Amino acid sequence: MAASSGPVRAPAPLVLVPNTLDLGEAPEHQSDLRDVLPDGVLRRAAELTVWLAEDAKTTRAFLKRVDSVHRLSLPLQQIQIHTLPRAAKGKGESHASPAAKASTALLLAPALAGTPMGLISEAGLPGVADPGAEVVAAAHEAGVPVVVLAGPSSLTLAVAASGLNGQSFAFVGYLPQDPAARTARIRELDHLSKRLNQTQVLIETPYRNAALAEALLHALQPATRLSISCGLTLPHAWSRTHRVADWRPQSTSVMQSLADKVPAVFSFLA
Amino acid sequence: MAASSGPVRAPAPLVLVPNTLDLGEAPEHQSDLRDVLPDGVLRRAAELTVWLAEDAKTTRAFLKRVDSVHRLSLPLQQIQIHTLPRAAKGKGESHASPAAKASTALLLAPALAGTPMGLISEAGLPGVADPGAEVVAAAHEAGVPVVVLAGPSSLTLAVAASGLNGQSFAFVGYLPQDPAARTARIRELDHLSKRLNQTQVLIETPYRNAALAEALLHALQPATRLSISCGLTLPHAWSRTHRVADWRPQSTSVMQSLADKVPAVFSFLA
Repeated sequence: MAASSGPVRAPAPLVLVPNTLDLGEAPEHQSDLRDVLPDGVLRRAAELTVWLAEDAKTTRAFLKRVDSVHRLSLPLQQIQIHTLPRAAKGKGESHASPAAKASTALLLAPALAGTPMGLISEAGLPGVADPGAEVVAAAHEAGVPVVVLAGPSSLTLAVAASGLNGQSFAFVGYLPQDPAARTARIRELDHLSKRLNQTQVLIETPYRNAALAEALLHALQPATRLSISCGLTLPHAWSRTHRVADWRPQSTSVMQSLADKVPAVFSFLA
Repeated sequence: MAASSGPVRAPAPLVLVPNTLDLGEAPEHQSDLRDVLPDGVLRRAAELTVWLAEDAKTTRAFLKRVDSVHRLSLPLQQIQIHTLPRAAKGKGESHASPAAKASTALLLAPALAGTPMGLISEAGLPGVADPGAEVVAAAHEAGVPVVVLAGPSSLTLAVAASGLNGQSFAFVGYLPQDPAARTARIRELDHLSKRLNQTQVLIETPYRNAALAEALLHALQPATRLSISCGLTLPHAWSRTHRVADWRPQSTSVMQSLADKVPAVFSFLA
């Protein structure tokens, strides 16, 4: 066997590469890559020739943008991009079936054979409010070193911009779609926030942002402070924090400014 | 009065500037600024002439590093650096006294008069596990636009590197120092993590990291997965995730590798 007759190569790392936060923006409205990602990260990304990605097409678009700053080490069409298996939303790795775990582990074969691999999601950090955690968990299990490169997450940018409590905060993901269940969940989180003095951070698919803002303004206590950060890192980004009672008179203009496809992060502290 | 006789200037923004994550490292072990912060952020930082900072001395050191990439718009000694008032650890802005709030608001006078101001903490994003939230809250109240520049937080980098649940996680800050209270708190968080399928994220002053690791390995359930990320973004960074039962036999070497002054982030999922 090759492994016993030749030298055994140590596993190469799985490199977690941050993406920009301008998902869905037309190219002319996207941020300058060098405003959002460190030069050293772009240089490192340009060297990687095997990728695991949430979406192959947008990863090729990302690599084209990288290439305009640092020449890719191989022509784009020779770079391997493998798509991550779809995980059920909101489920952690511990809920994956043994078969799903085995197929995730197989994705790491190049790293185990000594070729560094990149892992990237559609926006921000892989595995943070995005797919990727399963393959990172598989890397830890298989002894593949995990390296995360410095990059932004819209969640912590939003906490910073909120002025709410950044010593204790929870990212609670998506709310239920059903209106009654959503209202109940918002009230539960409002109480929790008060009891723990903990900022609650939520996101939603962009086209549902206005509906989420409306639900929050309806269900939160008037004194709760609500922060909305919209289009973070984009030229037209804005972040505002007010008590719910002070947001309510402006609700129509808030809904309008959230009506686009721009990503937003909602945080509140009761 | 000047305000009524001359044109009224619109407030300039409070710009939240990310810092590197190599706090406390000797200059020769620090990361290259361009590996951790975007070029556009360094350019923007070089333009700011009035700063609010957790610490004036380290901010001057940061600006010297920035100057080596993008020339500062004024000589360093002409740049104003005001130190933030000390807030009680773990308290949110809502706990500040009216007098403290008023003095915080005064810090924003330059922005209200039209001069953009930078806000920076010792590491990562201001206001996230670091001082700064009070002045951001005051900016929102005073109508000073808040702009956050893209940069890393060790908390979200650690969640990405952990492979634990990144769809639901809580940063719970620091644990009690008293051993019995600390054990009780770890067990409470372990149960909460299981009940909510929520990753719990903690930090500690670096010299107490080994003691925290020992307490976690002692008090967490054997099947809980514990992730340790040490020295994130530094050349000797490492991230590892194992079940507590699998960490325990290696505890001596783990304590040793945490014995230095290097910052670490601890995450676990039961």
